[in-house]
Amino acid sequence: MSEPRKCALLVAYHGGKFFGFQRQPGKPTIQEELEAAWFAVSSEKVVMYGSGRTDSGVHAWGQVVHCATESKMPVDKMARAINAHLPEEVVVRAGVDVPSDFHAQASSIGKRYFYRLALGNPRPVLHTGLVAWDSSPTLDLLAMRQGAAFLLGEHDFSAFAAAGRSTKTSVRRLRAFHIRPSRGGVVFYMDGSGFLYKMVRNLVGSLLEVGKGRRAPDWVETVLESGDRKRAGATAPAEGLVLWRSLYPKDPFSPLL
Amino acid sequence: MSEPRKCALLVAYHGGKFFGFQRQPGKPTIQEELEAAWFAVSSEKVVMYGSGRTDSGVHAWGQVVHCATESKMPVDKMARAINAHLPEEVVVRAGVDVPSDFHAQASSIGKRYFYRLALGNPRPVLHTGLVAWDSSPTLDLLAMRQGAAFLLGEHDFSAFAAAGRSTKTSVRRLRAFHIRPSRGGVVFYMDGSGFLYKMVRNLVGSLLEVGKGRRAPDWVETVLESGDRKRAGATAPAEGLVLWRSLYPKDPFSPLL
Repeated sequence: MSEPRKCALLVAYHGGKFFGFQRQPGKPTIQEELEAAWFAVSSEKVVMYGSGRTDSGVHAWGQVVHCATESKMPVDKMARAINAHLPEEVVVRAGVDVPSDFHAQASSIGKRYFYRLALGNPRPVLHTGLVAWDSSPTLDLLAMRQGAAFLLGEHDFSAFAAAGRSTKTSVRRLRAFHIRPSRGGVVFYMDGSGFLYKMVRNLVGSLLEVGKGRRAPDWVETVLESGDRKRAGATAPAEGLVLWRSLYPKDPFSPLL
Repeated sequence: MSEPRKCALLVAYHGGKFFGFQRQPGKPTIQEELEAAWFAVSSEKVVMYGSGRTDSGVHAWGQVVHCATESKMPVDKMARAINAHLPEEVVVRAGVDVPSDFHAQASSIGKRYFYRLALGNPRPVLHTGLVAWDSSPTLDLLAMRQGAAFLLGEHDFSAFAAAGRSTKTSVRRLRAFHIRPSRGGVVFYMDGSGFLYKMVRNLVGSLLEVGKGRRAPDWVETVLESGDRKRAGATAPAEGLVLWRSLYPKDPFSPLL
């Protein structure tokens, strides 16, 4: 008996209308849309495993999903066919065959996220749902970068994890954290071995406390070491967050990125 | 008896959720939101007159509206107060007192619009509702500019007007028409004395026929001279269109723009 065929898809979406990636009864989710589109094309019921869940309102440019399939259709053709059945907010950027031991989540060795925040008045109404907004006209970027430096490396990030999802460990390695000015606001870039539930949004929310001068940069270290979620800043809104890439030792989409 | 006070507001909005600017019973519109927000602040029922109607799904960065009011509140303070009562897709960028003969529509001597079109695959899902999309990877910009040149100046634009709104004349002056490449697509900029119903979207749709090589540039002149709507290209989708500015001989917002 031959090994089952496995396919991986590189998926982008605007999360505004969806209740996150993972299927939930009676609510629109990215997973359900992908599975329904695959079924529409092939009459085959597959399960689409994502590299990670994204929450309600969170966007993705490089979500990776995999599924086992008995379809014989070339996967790039399948990807194009699926796109005709997806809502306009979701698109398969590419599809590839992957080895049978590939798993979108278990094989992932890290993720890159960015978070976009518009600053000052007027509200960025044309980008409603696509960027977060704070009425402060400026933030102290230098202080925020000093605060972010305490987060780099391997730490127990419990203080920045929301309750609601169990993981074996809350130790993660943050490999990069860049904070850059952008037209009308600021963008936060993060690269890490993995991120706990709502961790990116809690890190951004905490650094905003520093950027507004309410906390000193080393307060971030105090919060991190405390392991106490109640000490961190507020969770930044979902709409600013984009899952940019999921990383693999042998990235099935590397020729495309 | 003193003259009644008149105020003008400079308004930006994302049109995606709205049935256009002009009030319609039982449907969310920009006009209704502005009037409701004014009422929430002042308990005064005013009528907000726009510089022009925008259709369902069309955005604005510089819509101008005016209203007559008996309020004594400084208008900049009023503008800030209104913003607290508007949905997140609508914002008043500025408010000024205007002479009693100012009328947002009747005093306007022109408008500037831009139209954003993303090209090629994948679909620009992160900008769903904010830009239009065509799967063609490229367009012939030079041919489109040659076609657009036939439109400049004063013409009867009947061939590019949709039925459904009566105006005294369908003669308008198109003062500028720029077509520029933009990251991942193309942007059309138009400046004119006024625009007929759906005229911008019909001009863009017709130039797309030229950009795709289906029609020669001088076909645009043939359509213009025919005055026959059935000969023009398809109406380009609403989501690409932004009302950029409404122009006045004495622009009440000129210090701000």
